Amino acid sequence: MNRLQVAIVGTPYPQLTAALAAAEVDIVEDHLSAEAAIVTFGGTSAELTELATNSSTLRWVQLPSAGIEAFNDALKARPDLQWTSAKGAYGEPVAEHALALTLALLRELPKRVVARSWAPASGTSLHGLRITVVGSGGVALEIVRLMKCFRTDVTVVRRTEADAAGADRTISTAQLHEALPKTDVLVLAAALTPATRNMISATELALLGEHAIIVNIARGGLIDTTALTEHLAANKIAGAALDVTEPEPLPDGHPLWTEPRALITPHAADTLEMIQPLFAARVAENLSRFGSGLALTGQVDAAAGY
Amino acid sequence: MNRLQVAIVGTPYPQLTAALAAAEVDIVEDHLSAEAAIVTFGGTSAELTELATNSSTLRWVQLPSAGIEAFNDALKARPDLQWTSAKGAYGEPVAEHALALTLALLRELPKRVVARSWAPASGTSLHGLRITVVGSGGVALEIVRLMKCFRTDVTVVRRTEADAAGADRTISTAQLHEALPKTDVLVLAAALTPATRNMISATELALLGEHAIIVNIARGGLIDTTALTEHLAANKIAGAALDVTEPEPLPDGHPLWTEPRALITPHAADTLEMIQPLFAARVAENLSRFGSGLALTGQVDAAAGY
Repeated sequence: MNRLQVAIVGTPYPQLTAALAAAEVDIVEDHLSAEAAIVTFGGTSAELTELATNSSTLRWVQLPSAGIEAFNDALKARPDLQWTSAKGAYGEPVAEHALALTLALLRELPKRVVARSWAPASGTSLHGLRITVVGSGGVALEIVRLMKCFRTDVTVVRRTEADAAGADRTISTAQLHEALPKTDVLVLAAALTPATRNMISATELALLGEHAIIVNIARGGLIDTTALTEHLAANKIAGAALDVTEPEPLPDGHPLWTEPRALITPHAADTLEMIQPLFAARVAENLSRFGSGLALTGQVDAAAGY
Repeated sequence: MNRLQVAIVGTPYPQLTAALAAAEVDIVEDHLSAEAAIVTFGGTSAELTELATNSSTLRWVQLPSAGIEAFNDALKARPDLQWTSAKGAYGEPVAEHALALTLALLRELPKRVVARSWAPASGTSLHGLRITVVGSGGVALEIVRLMKCFRTDVTVVRRTEADAAGADRTISTAQLHEALPKTDVLVLAAALTPATRNMISATELALLGEHAIIVNIARGGLIDTTALTEHLAANKIAGAALDVTEPEPLPDGHPLWTEPRALITPHAADTLEMIQPLFAARVAENLSRFGSGLALTGQVDAAAGY
């Protein structure tokens, strides 16, 4: 009789609807009587903020993405609620995209795509390279796992020095500058917070070797775009592959569009089609946990910003 | 004092020279007195055939590549010798290239390389796809291992039905036609023999779905190039990534150069720089085995053609 009263903020889709049906919850039309809010793709901050501000029954909000910055207003309005994000849920496709971009740069695929004639063999093997992964969330740890499939040496850079699972070593952000000169592939997989904004600026770029490449599948604001653009144009690093940019979308005419050492993908690491089943699985898991009084997966640390 | 008398056919390089020195063999200038011949990169079939035909002391020949077709004359002249190829030695870089090409097609990187404007996110994740790997040698098994890192379902197609390590299932070449309609990614990693030449022709291409992609890192002759070119132009498969072509080099002006669904790399899966240390390691291993009377690694089955 105590079926959980759930509000859906945004547009439901078949896999999510099936997960909610299997969990035997009641979907409420009157959002203010909801105990839990599932924010799905297309759900807006304004809609959620209104619900969170006005509902006296709400206890838990599930957000649909790993980053929470889009919903900061609602979070600030109701810090007393349980907040969960999708962090960790989309690790597979995002880490896979990081690998795709890494291999594309190492194997010089941008040059091959536009070639109209055979050429001497060239390229670099990922095997044996030194990888530095910034971040230690679900995506970062999945990148570590995939990188270790290619016999690489992996350093994880995180806020704390607690060992990141699967890495050869874990260092703190304060040691980033020591790691950069020994890095062949720098992969950014950190949350965007005031502390991480522009963490890769001209200073950090100058510490990378000319053979190094950068891959960003997290948030564009982690990199000082102007500094990176200048660094690439000056041929001081071998390449940069960016699935996220600052500004985003990258405007038409931006010099990165025609920089031969830059490979831009339009925030396509995890498409809606890829993440819909993964979000539905996360919702199912957390509905089960909520019903059993277990700790929810993907709890938001509002102070840390993720 | 019974130091092995070794002839070097081709140009030695530092890692090979170091391996030979560590093995304490004698490098003989008069090749006809050699007991073993190490054919290295640049060694010619003519040079080897002359040595093999005329030496009465020769017992073992180590070839530098996985494919042996370039040295068929010498093999035919002296089938009584022990012949070893580098099969299995270059699995890491070649399998890595197969993954790079697979991910590049799935993630639509050829389109991204030439884009000059942001676009909607699109692409396919490798996770969960059905992979068919043709071949079961060292490269094929390494491809299986890497593919399994991405939670794929892997079918190996080989001459015999003996289970291929790591695959979800192993089928014989006679069952290839049954597997093709259930294939998302077809990876060719078989030797080129009279039995495998043109094994992917118009008939096999027609059995693949429109969403399927083909990756060839083995030998161009495995595919009927004309049939593939027509099939791509008709938009009947999603893409083909070819590190090897027939003819090779792919001639200027060939329609595959401008086919947007084709990605051509110039036999760059294992560059000389990548394989030099791996060949030196294989030579060191086999010199040790030869000295100890152990079975050599990479023994050539001249009748099978690899």
